[in-house]
Amino acid sequence: MIQPVSILSPVLHYENGALEEVEDSIVTESPITIMLNEEEFATLVCSPEYIEELVIGFLASEGVIQAYTDVTDLFVDETTGYAYVRAEKVNRYNQMFHSKRYVTSCCGKSRQSFYFYNDARTVKKLETTGVTISSADCFRFMQAMQQSAKLFQDTGGVHNAALCDANGIVVSRMDIGRHNALDKLYGHCLMHSVPVEDKIMVFSGRISSEVLLKVAKIGCSIVLSKSAPTELALRLAQELGITTVGFIRNQSFNVYTWPERIEQAEGGTSSDSK
Amino acid sequence: MIQPVSILSPVLHYENGALEEVEDSIVTESPITIMLNEEEFATLVCSPEYIEELVIGFLASEGVIQAYTDVTDLFVDETTGYAYVRAEKVNRYNQMFHSKRYVTSCCGKSRQSFYFYNDARTVKKLETTGVTISSADCFRFMQAMQQSAKLFQDTGGVHNAALCDANGIVVSRMDIGRHNALDKLYGHCLMHSVPVEDKIMVFSGRISSEVLLKVAKIGCSIVLSKSAPTELALRLAQELGITTVGFIRNQSFNVYTWPERIEQAEGGTSSDSK
Repeated sequence: MIQPVSILSPVLHYENGALEEVEDSIVTESPITIMLNEEEFATLVCSPEYIEELVIGFLASEGVIQAYTDVTDLFVDETTGYAYVRAEKVNRYNQMFHSKRYVTSCCGKSRQSFYFYNDARTVKKLETTGVTISSADCFRFMQAMQQSAKLFQDTGGVHNAALCDANGIVVSRMDIGRHNALDKLYGHCLMHSVPVEDKIMVFSGRISSEVLLKVAKIGCSIVLSKSAPTELALRLAQELGITTVGFIRNQSFNVYTWPERIEQAEGGTSSDSK
Repeated sequence: MIQPVSILSPVLHYENGALEEVEDSIVTESPITIMLNEEEFATLVCSPEYIEELVIGFLASEGVIQAYTDVTDLFVDETTGYAYVRAEKVNRYNQMFHSKRYVTSCCGKSRQSFYFYNDARTVKKLETTGVTISSADCFRFMQAMQQSAKLFQDTGGVHNAALCDANGIVVSRMDIGRHNALDKLYGHCLMHSVPVEDKIMVFSGRISSEVLLKVAKIGCSIVLSKSAPTELALRLAQELGITTVGFIRNQSFNVYTWPERIEQAEGGTSSDSK
């Protein structure tokens, strides 16, 4: 059942008044059902690569596991599309509240932006990190991610996420699901003990509240996107201490939150919009 | 808690080496928790407009209700973001299996493309409809949808879906969530008894398997997109009898499935790629 991430297929291409058969690259989707301690936990439809990273990142993002060491066994059956996970210290409370709305006010007013129970429990405000970024690097990292995103260029059908440091891209992952690409990165970092405090997240899609929360869970303090953020994402970014840069296109971009981390070019001006 | 669909906000715009404060339009997100017969069913994060349509379309799409007449009461509390639904003939079986993986083989081999239990139960192959579309209308409908999509032009942050007939757009809906835009259209058609058999679906985003299944549930036999389909979506489209047209851009497009519904322009050639 698990396939290559894209296949070549005949399609009818229309141009100049005629339909002509051509071969085109089409991105695939595969379902992965996570069996957690022998119970069905969730089914993710994803691009079929880096499945182990996806499973680990998803479980961590949902707050079910706290660390990779909580997982005692992980087996992905590629024939059937099932991932069997044995884990200790499973947070059954979080497992129960998977996608339940967060309505109690135990965390006080400052948590009113959190709508899902598990997010309110797992997301923490980032300690101030010393990471900054120059405007030149905003463009450079976005360009590097787009150039590395070969599958997207072929098929137009996937999202890309990359972690960068001063030297450029450290690791990048793609998926047909925007959240899956981020979960794969998260899983990679947990499985290989990659430090994230000094990294910058570059993302191909819009920054929704769900995307922003994943960035916060992974632990990055700067997120770059070629697309737009939502207002709720920006409220969360403000609260959680994350610098949000959007619409990185054609030598311009917007800074929405925590502009302190954007290094000022010589002759540049700044104003405080917070 | 329910807000306008976008707000004006100060942002720092970088261009020509300097950051300058400008005012920009930012799209909002609101959570809507559906309480079905006094039990929490699901929380959707959405663009806060046409909430009643979204709720009805979502419940129908999940197979929980079969018709709008199954709903005996619907009240949206805009202050708290809760939608209270009373419904008769609720399919508790579908409610139980909400997002559970479909593993039984009761429907035989032809249903092997269905990964979620509720999809396998609710999606039916479209009866052959007489709807066809010319290449000129593929471009015309896509252009009409993009022109009507004012919020997207302002904010870059939403997806658009529209139902068209020979005269152009009949109804269009937008949302930060691609599935929500389709559910709003579905709810609109159910609540206002809009016939769909003669309509064509125009969508701004990629055609994933989930999008294709929603198009099938709504009951359209032609779907147009400016973006890419996935391989699984195309397998489903082939099986369900839906014509899929993608990459409608710059006077060209691709036809992936059921090309019989594309009217041949004079002098055009056709080949059978199925």
